[in-house]
Parts: sequence; structure tokens; C-alpha cells
Amino acid sequence: MLTTLAWTLPQWQSAYHNGTTPDHLLSALVGHLDPQDPAWISIATPDQLSQQLVELALKLEQSSGDISRLPLYGVPFAVKDNIDVAGFPTTAACPAYAYKPKADAHTVALLKAAGAIVVGKTNLDQFATGLVGTRSPYGAVPNSFKPEYISGGSSSGSASTVARGLVPFSLGTDTAGSGRVPASLNNIIGLKGTCGAMSIRGVVPACRSLDVVSIFALTLDDASMVFELAAQYDAAEAYSRQAPTARPNSFSQGPRLGIPASPQFYGDSVSADAWESTLAQWSDLDVELVPIDFSPFSELAALLYDGPWVAERHAAVEIFMRDHGSEMNPVVRGIIEQAKKFSATDAFKAEYRRAELRRTIEQIMAPLSGLLVPSAPTFPTLADLLEEPVNRNSELGTYTNFVNLADMCALAIPAGFRSDGLPFGVTLIGRAWHDKALQTLAQQWLATQTLTLGATNQSVPASTPISPEVAPGYLRVAVVG
Amino acid sequence: MLTTLAWTLPQWQSAYHNGTTPDHLLSALVGHLDPQDPAWISIATPDQLSQQLVELALKLEQSSGDISRLPLYGVPFAVKDNIDVAGFPTTAACPAYAYKPKADAHTVALLKAAGAIVVGKTNLDQFATGLVGTRSPYGAVPNSFKPEYISGGSSSGSASTVARGLVPFSLGTDTAGSGRVPASLNNIIGLKGTCGAMSIRGVVPACRSLDVVSIFALTLDDASMVFELAAQYDAAEAYSRQAPTARPNSFSQGPRLGIPASPQFYGDSVSADAWESTLAQWSDLDVELVPIDFSPFSELAALLYDGPWVAERHAAVEIFMRDHGSEMNPVVRGIIEQAKKFSATDAFKAEYRRAELRRTIEQIMAPLSGLLVPSAPTFPTLADLLEEPVNRNSELGTYTNFVNLADMCALAIPAGFRSDGLPFGVTLIGRAWHDKALQTLAQQWLATQTLTLGATNQSVPASTPISPEVAPGYLRVAVVG
Repeated sequence: MLTTLAWTLPQWQSAYHNGTTPDHLLSALVGHLDPQDPAWISIATPDQLSQQLVELALKLEQSSGDISRLPLYGVPFAVKDNIDVAGFPTTAACPAYAYKPKADAHTVALLKAAGAIVVGKTNLDQFATGLVGTRSPYGAVPNSFKPEYISGGSSSGSASTVARGLVPFSLGTDTAGSGRVPASLNNIIGLKGTCGAMSIRGVVPACRSLDVVSIFALTLDDASMVFELAAQYDAAEAYSRQAPTARPNSFSQGPRLGIPASPQFYGDSVSADAWESTLAQWSDLDVELVPIDFSPFSELAALLYDGPWVAERHAAVEIFMRDHGSEMNPVVRGIIEQAKKFSATDAFKAEYRRAELRRTIEQIMAPLSGLLVPSAPTFPTLADLLEEPVNRNSELGTYTNFVNLADMCALAIPAGFRSDGLPFGVTLIGRAWHDKALQTLAQQWLATQTLTLGATNQSVPASTPISPEVAPGYLRVAVVG
Repeated sequence: MLTTLAWTLPQWQSAYHNGTTPDHLLSALVGHLDPQDPAWISIATPDQLSQQLVELALKLEQSSGDISRLPLYGVPFAVKDNIDVAGFPTTAACPAYAYKPKADAHTVALLKAAGAIVVGKTNLDQFATGLVGTRSPYGAVPNSFKPEYISGGSSSGSASTVARGLVPFSLGTDTAGSGRVPASLNNIIGLKGTCGAMSIRGVVPACRSLDVVSIFALTLDDASMVFELAAQYDAAEAYSRQAPTARPNSFSQGPRLGIPASPQFYGDSVSADAWESTLAQWSDLDVELVPIDFSPFSELAALLYDGPWVAERHAAVEIFMRDHGSEMNPVVRGIIEQAKKFSATDAFKAEYRRAELRRTIEQIMAPLSGLLVPSAPTFPTLADLLEEPVNRNSELGTYTNFVNLADMCALAIPAGFRSDGLPFGVTLIGRAWHDKALQTLAQQWLATQTLTLGATNQSVPASTPISPEVAPGYLRVAVVG
């Protein structure tokens, strides 16, 4: 068995502080990864690994040999295959589309600069179009608990590799829920920060104006640390945003969380029951749950797939699709082709409707700290998806699709298990730049839970919450050293 | 001759403090307005006037009879006929489109609440589509200096009625320059505030996501006061924005203003000369002029008319145009029909380009306080426009079209006269919410100029600058009482 299985960041850091070398641990890890595993599109070759190790050694030299100055020193991570890693092809799960990027995506570069090592590129719903993890010529990614169920997507491989403990964290993307739905279906953390907080430079666009790079991790502490390192303003990307100087680290005492007054589970009573028990447990925390009319959120969610935003997906692959349409996943192509029915006039009318719904949502949110929702309302099998590939997919986005259109941040966290043994998750949603406040609240919730790390059966180590006053990565390395 | 001709706000206030009644002054004024004057689409009837006077008397009663609590008590103003005034038809300069609004536009309601009285609705380029003032079935509005020249538009009538001293201020709209170009061509102030600062509720949309209500006035003090009163957040309008709490009242000492390194005048050497002499005078102020590459601004400007934003105009009148296209001005219809060639995909691609250009502009602006540009590069005659109705129009927007797309505020101010006796104007442009800082800088410039009020030959009274510490309207009334 793999020594590093289900290691969290402190364990990786500790191992290196105790004298183990990245070469030793990572060669073993990469050697263990299975090329037949549908979660991977490509796995680092010995060359790709050793080249990164050489670069890491250089960085360490530049850091006077002090590994605590490289908060992710020798930590392996996986990258969704619509995010560029220099030297690896980027396929977006479409072999005919593949290209070899010259440069790392901005977020990948930042994580490498902190010492992290890319061990592979992961499978996804083609062009990140889907929430299911089945729309890929590289195979459907099975759920990490029960393989007859879906992994969720589109960041299917990035969720699966973390849930199985192969890597402590991974990068995904999240336009409509692609970073939250698969986190939830695999019992891990899915952090979708404020739009523009992490740069999308070097990412194959899905809906460029709404795309977000997201983080999967086994623990919230790890996800938070990666976010602190990767959320840096990027002047070279038009949608990157400067963070405001004042960002809350926590909500005021007794936060008020809006919950859907009549939550929709599309007949999935097992999920509905899990939601009810979760709510009962949330009520034990110092939190006020406020049922709210969810219809403006639902209308906004529907705009994303049924409205003209699909033209953003078209804008991203227009020329490729014209020349290589037959080489695309037919469901994905069918969705993107819907773009052609929308005129510029439609696009602006939908933008007006979005502005109106955002105003309504602003007013609903005024007395609230944030929202608490199920991460996914259903848990389809692979067979369900084959039978109805579009509707089952749409249902999954009920509690995720609206978030980027409303310029909000979100954090998907585990919430125990359904009666059938499959994981259940909830998502905290907040106003833009309330990422840290969501994390603080989630930590309170997680402290009340008996959790396992993803699908590994190993229990979650006690949290050593990050002091907001100190740059977290740097502090924590010292603590575990 | 009309007693109140070219009165500025302090003169109106002074007259009422000295015991004159609104009925007396305004009946005379309205009686004097000429229904044949192409600047007007409708003039208040005796009933419409007396109804407003009754409401004003009620407001005064509610203010304990203290007229200093109504900063615009009895002050007449004109409203562009694409802005609703209850009781007046709104035509948008298209008789077939006319409707009778039940409520005042948000800005009109705020000004009425401060005591102002609407004396008429003004002519415009149909559906606010144009910068010329000739595209209206109500007639071309002649320039207030030389009638063979254009007034500029689209807010032609609102500029003309102020320039001729009929009213002290008026409302226009400004999407592409409609509030700045006609101000410049008629020697008056054209204030286009930060997008969303004044609500567009009750305005016939041109490009709804970019439309701004603008202010024309004979003096900057008057324009500033009207802006303070009318720039109020409107929760009911999706594009209205909350002002940030900290807004600068002025720039730091020795502001740096970007000027176009190679300004474009399309062969109009008279305007080019006027610009050169103006720059020489600006250099005498404590201001640093910094030539900058203007091409990103020009590219953004071109997007507005040549790109998919024309679909916003289409979205606004789509159904009307389908049923009544033949009743529209053919040039305006021809422009709006261009919308049909743009797909939703085109709209998103242009939005990406806009985001990129905004980022570039942000970087150009980083070391600058603002920009100084000619308000209009040319000064066409009515005959020029007949000959080439589209190109002459486009040229006029060179220094205005990009401003709302870049989320900037602007202030068009007089800058003396060209060698042919026609007025010349410049525009100060600043980042969003720098309205007041632009006004402070403009006041410094205006103090160095020997100016006349619009086209009236009366000289501009000395400015009594508004103290930023005190609610301006209220203070000023007390001062003149």
C-alpha cells in the first residue's frame, strides 16, 4: 500500500521536516498511480517529475535551504485537464483539441512557487460542460464510494484523486458547480472562492466571464492554505480582481443563514432526509437558520444553462467546433450548439434579467450572513445518466448554478452520510470576498462532526485553525516542523 | 424680453427670497416659450404648470413655509423627452412610440421633491441614437450660436434651452456622449456622473447597461448642486449603485492629466488650434499634462457603435420596431437594425474585449488623476450631416464613446471659442465616483476663464464654491437668502 495515502498537508510537511526527500516519496507515489484509472488523463512521466524536482531543489537553494519558506515543499497535487501545466498536454477531455502549453496557468505557477509538484492531469466533463463526470472520451469517473454512482463533475478526476487520498489537494474549475458537486459526492472539501480571486489565466474557458479555479482537499485547513497561496491578483488577466483591503475573517456571533424554504430534491427522499438531519445538527450550533424564498436564486440558476450564457461556451470553442464537431462528445456538442439560437439582443436581455435578480438577491441577503444549501439535491447512478444525460445533469446544479452569476463565494463541505451510505454535503454561500468568513464558520461545523478523509476510511485529524493574523502557510510549516 | 433669461440658481433663489412667487415668474416663462422652437417637444400647459405649483405649495407647507428647505424652490427645468415626467407624454422623439407615463422618472421625482418645476420636454436624436441633434421628426435643433451648425445630440433640446438661458438647468441622457457633445457645442456645462449614480428608472433605454442621466447647466455650481440632489441610490433600479462611503472631493496637489498623444480632429484645423491654445492655458494651472497612447480608448469607443452593444438599442425597441419600423427615423432604424447581425457569441466576445481594454486602461490610468480631452473633435454644419449622416456622427464620439464602457465619470466644460466664433469645450474624465474631484478641478480652470453664460452674452457670475463638508443645496440657499 502507498505510504502517503490520505496524507494531509501537515503530514507531508512533517515527513520532509523529518528528512525524507521529495524524490523518494513522489517517485513512489507516481509509480503507484494507475494509467487505467479514469480519473487521470495524464500522469507525470519520470522526466516530468524529475524536472519539477530539479526546479524545486533550485527554489530551496534560493530559500537558503529552509523548507519552511516553501509552504508546499514537495507536496503533490493534481490539476484538472483544462488548466495548463507546462510540459503536459491540455486536452479539456477532447483529444482532438489537445495542445501543449508553454506556460503554467497562473494558479499552477503560484503553487509550484510554494513548492508543490504536479503529479498528473485529471479527467473532466469535456470542456467543463457538465456536473456529472461521465461526458469524457477518457471514460466516466466512478464515485469513490460506490462505483455504480457518478463522481459528479465537471472536475471529476480532481475530486476522485483527492477523495481516494492519492493527493492531498487538487485544482478544479467551477463555473456552474463543477468544484462543489463532485466534492459533495466524494466527501471532500470543495472551495470555490470569490470570482476573480484566483486568476483564470491559462484555463480553457467554459464561460470566461464566470469561470473560477477551485480547490479540492481532504481537510478544510488544507483547502484554506492552498487558497491563501493561490488567490493572488493577476494584472494580466482581465477578470482577475483586486481583493478589497478589508475582508471579514468571520461572521458576527450567531450568524443568520438563509436556507431554502421549500428545498427541491426531485424525488430523492434519501437526500431530503440527509438534509433534514443536517439542519437539525446545524441548529445545535450558534447559528440562526432562516427559511427564505429561493425562487430568485432558482431563476438565476436556470439562466446559466437555459439562457444565452451557453454562448460563452460557444465563444470558447467556436472555430474548433466548426472544424472538429464530430470529434466532440455528442451531449456536450449538443449543449454548446444551443448557443446558435441566441442573438446579441437575447444576451443583453438576459444580462438585464441577471442584474434585476442580483438586486433582488442583494435584498434577500441584506439581513443574512450567508446561505446554507445542499451541495447537490440528488445522487444519480451512471445508469441514470445514460438514460437521461441532460435533465439529471441540470438537477444537480440546483444549488450551485446561480452562485457565480450572483458574484458570491461558496464552500462545499462534508455533512455525513445518507442512509444508503453515500456521502452527503452542504454548501455555505457568502457575498463576494467573504471566503475566510465561510471557512471559519465551516470549521465550527466540521468540529462537531465525526468525519473520514474522503473515501479513505481514515479519520480527519483535529484542526489546527489558521490564525488570520499570520500568513498561514508559513506559520503552519513552523508548527509541524 | 424675458425677465428670468439666463438666471442661474442663485438668482432664482434670490428672487423667491425677496418675495416673488413661482406662479408669477413661471407663468411668464412658460408663456414666453415658443411651440415652434425645435428644442421643445412639449411645453407645460397652463394646467400642467398650475398642478405642479399646487404640489409645490403643499411641499412648502410641509416644510413649515421655509423655502430654504426646498433648495430648488420654484426653479424651472427642462427634461429630455426620453425621461418620464408624469402627465407629459414621453415620445423619445418618435411620435408613434409615445406613451403617457404614470410616474416621474426617479431623478425627476427627486428634483421635484427639492422644489423644481418641469416647464417642458425637449427634443433629441430619436431613441437617443445619435450625437448630432438632427435625427428627429420634431426637427433639427440649430446650434445656439450659429443656426447653420448642429446643436449636437442626442440631448439637443436640453442643451439648447439651457444655452439660450430659458432654463437654468435641464436633464439629458448620456450613453455615448449625448450629454457632453451638445454641452460643448453650446458653451455650457455637461455633467455625466458615474454610471449608476443617478438612477435610470423611468428612462427609455438606449443601452440600458450603459445609460446615464446627465445634467446641463449654465454654471458648474448649478450643475454640481443638481447632481448632489439627483444622485441618490435607487433600490428599485438594477443598475443603480450605492456610492462608496469614501469619495475624493479633490485630486492631490498638481494633478496629472492624461491627454491624447496624437489627438484626432478629422481635418478640422480650427478645432485642433482651439485644443492647442486650451492646452497652453491648462499648463498655466498647477496641472501636469501627460501625453498618452489613446488607442485603447479609441478601440473601446469603436466597440460601442460598431460592436454588439447596438443590440442593447434593439432590445429596447424590438417589438416597436417590428410593428412600426416605417415610422422611425430611417438613419436611426438603419443603425438599430445592425443589431441583427450580432449573435450572443459575438456579444460575449466583445464583452471579453471590453474587459481586456478596461484592464489596459486601468494600467494607463494608474499614474494619472484623470484625462483631459476635447469634448468633440469637429463642429459639423447641418448640411454636413445631410451629406454624411453616419460618419460625421461617429467622429463626434471620439472622446466620449468609451467613457461609460470604461466605467468612468466625465464633466464637459467650456473652454473659450474657436477662431470662427463657435464655442470650444473640453472634458475632464475620471475613475468612477470621482465626480466631485472633477468638479473641483474644473472650477479651478473656469476661474481662469472669461466666460459667458451659454449663448446669452451674459457673463458668468463669480463662483461661490460649495463646501464639501456641508450638504450643498441647503447651505447655498441660506447664503443667498
